[in-house]
Amino acid sequence: MSESSDSGNWSARMFGDAAMSALFSDRARLQRMLDFEAALVRAEARCAVVPQSAVAVIATHCRAEAFDLDAIGDDARLAGNPAIPMVKRLTAAVKADDAEAARWVHWGATSQDAIDTGLVLQLRDALALIDDGCAALVDVLARLANEHRASLMAGRTWLQQAVPVTFGLKCAGWLDGLLRNRQRIAELRPRLLVLQFGGAAGTLAALGDRGLDVAKVLSEELALSLPATPWHSARDRIAEAGSVVGLLAGSLGKIARDLSLMMQTEVAEVFEPAAEGKGGSSTMPHKRNPVGCSIVLANAVRVPGLVASLFAAMTQEHERGLGNWPAEWETLPEIFRLAAGSLAVLTPTLAGLEVDTARMRENLDATRGLLFAERVTMALAEAMGKPAAHHRLESLSRRVVAERRHLRELLAEDSQLSLLLSVKRLDELFDPAAALGVGDAFIDRVLAAAAQIN
Amino acid sequence: MSESSDSGNWSARMFGDAAMSALFSDRARLQRMLDFEAALVRAEARCAVVPQSAVAVIATHCRAEAFDLDAIGDDARLAGNPAIPMVKRLTAAVKADDAEAARWVHWGATSQDAIDTGLVLQLRDALALIDDGCAALVDVLARLANEHRASLMAGRTWLQQAVPVTFGLKCAGWLDGLLRNRQRIAELRPRLLVLQFGGAAGTLAALGDRGLDVAKVLSEELALSLPATPWHSARDRIAEAGSVVGLLAGSLGKIARDLSLMMQTEVAEVFEPAAEGKGGSSTMPHKRNPVGCSIVLANAVRVPGLVASLFAAMTQEHERGLGNWPAEWETLPEIFRLAAGSLAVLTPTLAGLEVDTARMRENLDATRGLLFAERVTMALAEAMGKPAAHHRLESLSRRVVAERRHLRELLAEDSQLSLLLSVKRLDELFDPAAALGVGDAFIDRVLAAAAQIN
Amino acid sequence: MSESSDSGNWSARMFGDAAMSALFSDRARLQRMLDFEAALVRAEARCAVVPQSAVAVIATHCRAEAFDLDAIGDDARLAGNPAIPMVKRLTAAVKADDAEAARWVHWGATSQDAIDTGLVLQLRDALALIDDGCAALVDVLARLANEHRASLMAGRTWLQQAVPVTFGLKCAGWLDGLLRNRQRIAELRPRLLVLQFGGAAGTLAALGDRGLDVAKVLSEELALSLPATPWHSARDRIAEAGSVVGLLAGSLGKIARDLSLMMQTEVAEVFEPAAEGKGGSSTMPHKRNPVGCSIVLANAVRVPGLVASLFAAMTQEHERGLGNWPAEWETLPEIFRLAAGSLAVLTPTLAGLEVDTARMRENLDATRGLLFAERVTMALAEAMGKPAAHHRLESLSRRVVAERRHLRELLAEDSQLSLLLSVKRLDELFDPAAALGVGDAFIDRVLAAAAQIN
Amino acid sequence: MSESSDSGNWSARMFGDAAMSALFSDRARLQRMLDFEAALVRAEARCAVVPQSAVAVIATHCRAEAFDLDAIGDDARLAGNPAIPMVKRLTAAVKADDAEAARWVHWGATSQDAIDTGLVLQLRDALALIDDGCAALVDVLARLANEHRASLMAGRTWLQQAVPVTFGLKCAGWLDGLLRNRQRIAELRPRLLVLQFGGAAGTLAALGDRGLDVAKVLSEELALSLPATPWHSARDRIAEAGSVVGLLAGSLGKIARDLSLMMQTEVAEVFEPAAEGKGGSSTMPHKRNPVGCSIVLANAVRVPGLVASLFAAMTQEHERGLGNWPAEWETLPEIFRLAAGSLAVLTPTLAGLEVDTARMRENLDATRGLLFAERVTMALAEAMGKPAAHHRLESLSRRVVAERRHLRELLAEDSQLSLLLSVKRLDELFDPAAALGVGDAFIDRVLAAAAQIN
Repeated sequence: MSESSDSGNWSARMFGDAAMSALFSDRARLQRMLDFEAALVRAEARCAVVPQSAVAVIATHCRAEAFDLDAIGDDARLAGNPAIPMVKRLTAAVKADDAEAARWVHWGATSQDAIDTGLVLQLRDALALIDDGCAALVDVLARLANEHRASLMAGRTWLQQAVPVTFGLKCAGWLDGLLRNRQRIAELRPRLLVLQFGGAAGTLAALGDRGLDVAKVLSEELALSLPATPWHSARDRIAEAGSVVGLLAGSLGKIARDLSLMMQTEVAEVFEPAAEGKGGSSTMPHKRNPVGCSIVLANAVRVPGLVASLFAAMTQEHERGLGNWPAEWETLPEIFRLAAGSLAVLTPTLAGLEVDTARMRENLDATRGLLFAERVTMALAEAMGKPAAHHRLESLSRRVVAERRHLRELLAEDSQLSLLLSVKRLDELFDPAAALGVGDAFIDRVLAAAAQIN
Repeated sequence: MSESSDSGNWSARMFGDAAMSALFSDRARLQRMLDFEAALVRAEARCAVVPQSAVAVIATHCRAEAFDLDAIGDDARLAGNPAIPMVKRLTAAVKADDAEAARWVHWGATSQDAIDTGLVLQLRDALALIDDGCAALVDVLARLANEHRASLMAGRTWLQQAVPVTFGLKCAGWLDGLLRNRQRIAELRPRLLVLQFGGAAGTLAALGDRGLDVAKVLSEELALSLPATPWHSARDRIAEAGSVVGLLAGSLGKIARDLSLMMQTEVAEVFEPAAEGKGGSSTMPHKRNPVGCSIVLANAVRVPGLVASLFAAMTQEHERGLGNWPAEWETLPEIFRLAAGSLAVLTPTLAGLEVDTARMRENLDATRGLLFAERVTMALAEAMGKPAAHHRLESLSRRVVAERRHLRELLAEDSQLSLLLSVKRLDELFDPAAALGVGDAFIDRVLAAAAQIN
Repeated sequence: MSESSDSGNWSARMFGDAAMSALFSDRARLQRMLDFEAALVRAEARCAVVPQSAVAVIATHCRAEAFDLDAIGDDARLAGNPAIPMVKRLTAAVKADDAEAARWVHWGATSQDAIDTGLVLQLRDALALIDDGCAALVDVLARLANEHRASLMAGRTWLQQAVPVTFGLKCAGWLDGLLRNRQRIAELRPRLLVLQFGGAAGTLAALGDRGLDVAKVLSEELALSLPATPWHSARDRIAEAGSVVGLLAGSLGKIARDLSLMMQTEVAEVFEPAAEGKGGSSTMPHKRNPVGCSIVLANAVRVPGLVASLFAAMTQEHERGLGNWPAEWETLPEIFRLAAGSLAVLTPTLAGLEVDTARMRENLDATRGLLFAERVTMALAEAMGKPAAHHRLESLSRRVVAERRHLRELLAEDSQLSLLLSVKRLDELFDPAAALGVGDAFIDRVLAAAAQIN
Repeated sequence: MSESSDSGNWSARMFGDAAMSALFSDRARLQRMLDFEAALVRAEARCAVVPQSAVAVIATHCRAEAFDLDAIGDDARLAGNPAIPMVKRLTAAVKADDAEAARWVHWGATSQDAIDTGLVLQLRDALALIDDGCAALVDVLARLANEHRASLMAGRTWLQQAVPVTFGLKCAGWLDGLLRNRQRIAELRPRLLVLQFGGAAGTLAALGDRGLDVAKVLSEELALSLPATPWHSARDRIAEAGSVVGLLAGSLGKIARDLSLMMQTEVAEVFEPAAEGKGGSSTMPHKRNPVGCSIVLANAVRVPGLVASLFAAMTQEHERGLGNWPAEWETLPEIFRLAAGSLAVLTPTLAGLEVDTARMRENLDATRGLLFAERVTMALAEAMGKPAAHHRLESLSRRVVAERRHLRELLAEDSQLSLLLSVKRLDELFDPAAALGVGDAFIDRVLAAAAQIN
């Protein structure tokens, strides 16, 4: 392999997923185009458009291993796409065996038919990989949500502790997002997994009046749907695929953001599972770096720009785009690779997550009771109205900070407020477990939805 | 009106749509948040969480006209969002009438509940506007596709004439994309049009064990679905809304790209409808500029970056995002405004499009018969195999260009090829109407799909 | 004001800066185009291309107050840009006074000349605003860097405490970035602040052989440089302006990111200055939200997509772009508005920042000495080599975490290591002030650079 | 090579440049990090921080060929970056030779020091490659601008013919943009080509008080500048590098856009140089596809999103970013690869461009004289004022289109206008060569600037 082609290897290993990378390798891409060619001759023979005798010999040569990838890449630069040199080589190979059959290679099709249909075949597998990955993560999150129903921790807004929640509820929120992502993938499939077959300019003119018949049989051969019309320059399907998988990458990024914040030295509530060689620092032996989160977050940073590129590529000219079409070729697979990489990293991270519920509980006291200020406000509001209660608590809160004392102490000292709040009432108000509202019911609702979908 | 606030007016008038702009005006935004507050007190009274007597007085004050928008905007800069100053002012206004009722304003809710639910209510109307706009454009495109079934024109790939198509087929391709966009909007709705109601950190803790009951009634009041769980920091719905509408803007951009290329001086196949003051040049009186296309294309250039911003904002922290949440506030409405603007411009442009079918036909001869080269190749391929036929036509094509002669003449002169192709066969091969393949059937398929969906 | 035009007001007040918004208001935009027209007639009169008598009457009418902004906006939608209706109205107004002078309005120019030159005039002022804002922030950061040279705090990598630094060093790092941003602005100016004047297609043909003379005088009149050639469709200057100001927004975002992380409840090292109505929560009276950081971060999330839009708009067709040119009109001002808004929020936030140096120091002990592990490693490495030392510290670090004991204790207990490290050596190794390396020298270097540039 | 790593090979060959790909290969990246390590030990020995005896043995092992790239990639996924496994392997290799020397490998440095400095070394070479490529393109464009000073063609705005220009002037406009891009690269260099050396958190604490001395010597060793302070989490330099090279990709895209529009079948003014296997269609033998333009345009579509990713990655946390830093690793090289690929394609395309000046001249008559309407307007304006002249020409222009007659004929027939315009005057008004204004002077100005810079 030449030096020029080894770029991206580290990147694939660090940020991607081996199965997805294999699926979008150049060789796999070639094979999928060859699958189109083989199916095409079969379909055309079934429609009696080409002789049955051409089928076997053409199909035999539709094996990617037999082609020189580098040479096709070099020729593609001149030809404008890799299907042209592929067809040239395939024709030559067939011709060496059977000159008559060579006539019928790629019969009636255009380069983009092979490239786009090949891509759709790759996307079918890629979506299955992604969806399986989601299903596995759904299982992990469902377990965590259920197991940590009672794991009290601080809910945080604006990066400030707000009121108590449970770690289970946080996991349920992540899970709920995953379910929507799976739903989107399910809705995308029928729209995306369709044949591309239009010939030179979308009329299948080279096949005379048999174009539609061949198209139907060809879509059967490949187990794809037949779209209403070819879509060479109508690229909403492609941009949609990127956005659907991009949304997943974003949802995973949100999980990683939360985990990494919880792993901060000063918070220390969860830890990525330890592994030999993982998360060490070259200079600081004690560190336990959120390496998995870093990968997932890196991918979440990169995906939005890639999605934008696909959207920007949509204004494709006439019956085939100039430049904007090839702009998709590397961009869409990259989105899939990164999303798959995020799944591949995040699922075991969550499956093996070390959760320090004791520390979560400890952190609830970091504000000396201020976390329960809303609760106390609401209790007092019943007696004195919300504005007055809010006002009183604001001033007490300032004292809690300034004097480094506990809110409960200050409440107990206050001559007016202590009359309104008995010791028993205070016990209850400062009990985080009593302050969880309907969090548990929300967990149930999400788990029920997960059970239905997964 | 202060100078600082008039920016964006020209932009709204040039690139947007008045109805959509009104829908996303600050005042409309405020009203939708107030609609949430009014529905909230109704729901809480129905659940006996607050006294029935509070309902009327609070609801009465939930009218945006009564609020000072500028003052709320200024306070929002300090408060971090516009709901906080709104609630403060609403409470004060209610208090002036009924101090007891004032206690129950915004009871149990958090700012984001009001802001997000208000947004969802805006989005419901906005999606209806967009979808109605799509339906109108579908009608126009269906008419054009049908009327121009026989309007022969050059199919173009790589900006080069390829083979004949019809203008009807081109319109059918645009139409097919529109149908998919409508389908996406339909699928988006149930996922997007849901209540946001979670209180301080998603547990509705302030409502004790009544949170879920109130949430159910509240969602009924607003005719929204109740999601499995609050989604304060799970923003995939928002990013999805932007991407779905962004895809539409891209599909419209593709139409505008084609139209503008067909309007080129040297092509001159279609023209935007003339209007007083439209498309004139300050220096060139003769020009007929594609002003409508320019707007639609401008919007298509701007939308991808906006979509990327929404995706980038997804990694929101813990129970409420810091910075990334407000990053959505202007971005999502802008995408809707631009897509609506594109629809508002493109639909009348296409409805009144001047189509010069004579010129389309003339342009088919621009290549002195080369447009039929594929057709001739296929005809010869039957006799001599595709590679040989392809090779012969390549060399003849070069002569057509170099010698400025017609392909048909050269074929007739060629001693070998003229034997294979009779005059009658040549007549037929060079008849564009005979070279349309199954284009017409594709038009039928798209029109059938349109009839089903619209 | 119509409802449709009030959108963006809240957004401007929350995320923008009043002075910058005024500078990019529609009225200011109109005035700058009129400034071009007034300067044009003066220049043409100086070159004797138009009669001197036309100057005063045309210049008198070049006042934006006299024009109906809404009407121009509406006409611009049809005309394709706002200069065409402006010139029409200006001509009519002049004609009412002096029909002869009306002939010479906009003489020899094209719409884009007025629009682009007007924009450049706006950008000149906008860059001055931005640069002044940077200079003010530089002063604040220089003071903080100097004052907090000795304010020990944890340096953090991967969101984990790493080794001690000072808050002064952190401020110096922020400051250093600001200096580079100012440098970029200085380098941008000569490239950006140039006249646009080319007439219909960049030849100034309407002025015969006098075009270059007029261009020179016109550039003098406006105090702009004369570029080598008109640049109607060469938009790198515009995209560069967006990227330079976008880099600033990113650098400010980095500061806000750090501040918001330091403001976390569990870290609590700094606080945004308190202000009436600032950062409060509608439900949690105790919270001190990083509202300023939220605005700066929101802007940093939005800017990258806007920059991408400008880059995507660069492939403008022939002598004037279709769609891609107008795509710039709202995008570039928005980048300036957001960057100015970030400066306007961040400078007072930092100027009034409450820094809790005691808490910073306390947090240094959060890891029970692990923060000094690198330092101990290096000390041991001298005796036993780095790999062995690293290995020993890794295992001790694990015990610190597992046993909740202090690293220093464990070192003292270790029979081998205690021989290598005396009590005095341990005192020194665990003294954070002795572990600052050359941080202070780095502060000096940055302050020296700041003194030179500011 | 595993299947998973061959993705991107076709992409590199089609859209990239072999030299640039080699420069950013994983192996080159490793070598540059090793260059840092070798220089580090040399610098530390010169400063007497490590023994002189360690230098040779460490330097000897700093050869990328000796390392297993795949293994480093796999370990990097766990470690979080490739420097950690590299240092581990380098240390082991040195230790096998000299255990004492092994102590001093990577002494006092952190992973990011090696990675960032290694990147800067790559960027130094990459900028040189880019700039050399620009210089070569400048030469080609300067020649074209000069040779085609008199090659009359239509200037086009809004994709409509406007007034005559020359192809030389168009080339001069492209060239002028290139010169600005070179200027930006020159200004970027001193800011970008700096050492990264800060140790664990930017204080070089592990080197005690010798950090700055070592840093100075190290920067000398590598011929880089010493920045005021380490910049581990201040990433404006990186985002700037991406934007500067991204602007170039956009400027090249603009050239390709123009060329591809001129290559349209109906325009046919220029052609990409022919080459065996280039631009052919698998189905249409006659086509001469703008394959080079397609590549350059594809790259211009992809770059804006990549630039946005770098800007989005700027808000890096504290002393080292989490996720956002690694998000740069593939993104910045990709921008360089694509820009280099565009240069590599566009320069020979322009150098060998076939320019059909006869067709350019013919196309000037496509509007039957309307191209000279501005000119006639200006001539009449002297007599009747611009508004009246404009009005008359507008109505004549409509007749030209409707009646398919030549403007000159209609002018000659008009009883009023024919009095104002003699036959000789009409000859002159409709002579495109007389209508070029100061286009030639603009060419001179650009060529003079090019001579200065190149």
